[in-house]
Amino acid sequence: MKLRRSSPEEAGWAETTVGPWTRHRRHVGYRNPWLTVWHDEVTRPDGEPGIYGVVHFRNTAVGVVAIDDEDRVALVGQHRYAFDRYHWEIPEGGSPLEEDSLEGAKRELLEETGLRAGTWREIGRWELSNSVTDEAAVAYLATDLRQGRAQPDGEEVLEFRWLPFDEVMALIAGGEITDALTVLPMQALALERARGQAD
Amino acid sequence: MKLRRSSPEEAGWAETTVGPWTRHRRHVGYRNPWLTVWHDEVTRPDGEPGIYGVVHFRNTAVGVVAIDDEDRVALVGQHRYAFDRYHWEIPEGGSPLEEDSLEGAKRELLEETGLRAGTWREIGRWELSNSVTDEAAVAYLATDLRQGRAQPDGEEVLEFRWLPFDEVMALIAGGEITDALTVLPMQALALERARGQAD
Repeated sequence: MKLRRSSPEEAGWAETTVGPWTRHRRHVGYRNPWLTVWHDEVTRPDGEPGIYGVVHFRNTAVGVVAIDDEDRVALVGQHRYAFDRYHWEIPEGGSPLEEDSLEGAKRELLEETGLRAGTWREIGRWELSNSVTDEAAVAYLATDLRQGRAQPDGEEVLEFRWLPFDEVMALIAGGEITDALTVLPMQALALERARGQAD
Repeated sequence: MKLRRSSPEEAGWAETTVGPWTRHRRHVGYRNPWLTVWHDEVTRPDGEPGIYGVVHFRNTAVGVVAIDDEDRVALVGQHRYAFDRYHWEIPEGGSPLEEDSLEGAKRELLEETGLRAGTWREIGRWELSNSVTDEAAVAYLATDLRQGRAQPDGEEVLEFRWLPFDEVMALIAGGEITDALTVLPMQALALERARGQAD
């Protein structure tokens, strides 16, 4: 495979220790506006030579659980290209690594649903797929909502629907909502509620 | 960027409809033994020309929540290369797409912890990062455990530790365990328990 030499700022031609690995060389294997794949020549933990391909994301994945006064959750439906399948999810998007991810969350919520929220709270942060990607995700709870007009960008064809919190949890338990960035914060909120009732 | 022409079986040089997109051409942008990046020339939902880079995984991500008779969960600690950080997680690994993922789960549990389980149950299936990857994940609950000897492969340096279920949930709530494939099934099990107590 033909590999491009990486730009100096991401090169790391100097030998680098990564936990029990040693990285000898880093090439750019692929690049587009959303991600870069680094192809690293390494010495593995067992001392053998090997390679490590890291999918580096330019954006943090941000998700927003927007809940209205009737305890309904804002869901968006869209055809996901990578799976060639229609998915219902919370509003999500990419927030550039150098951006405050809360600002990214506000923008994505507005673009996809037209909603603005008066109250924001971080629900959690996770790594989505840490074996070969460095994608980080964060989800926020948005409440005190006002409805405006959605502003989807050219790559998105979205439906927007309100669904009661408990129905969303039933769809998750039933395996009908399967997007990790939707399931992670919804489960976290449901557990908070369960603990609150137990106290 | 220099792009290789894809092999016939993955080519799709014929125009293909993917929901509201049209795919015109597919090249292989990068490939290693674990993943392939497809670089697709598309017409976007708004009719404009664009590209879509899909990170195609050769493996399903499998995770195992192994719980012993004292309600302790088997955790493994390892340095994750992509984040250059130490993570505690449930035993996880890749199961080739053509393999029964339960077989993959049994193998990964044995390799990483030396455990064999008498009882297996699927907890759930999710897509980890559906904007640009097609990685699917499945997690199983493993109980009725017998301890044997761990058999890590050369790319893994692992610690193995038992932690009470509630302590694992506290580490998740506190943001100290952040791996999605660990958090998703643990939260699902905690919700099952909370529902059981409420009944």
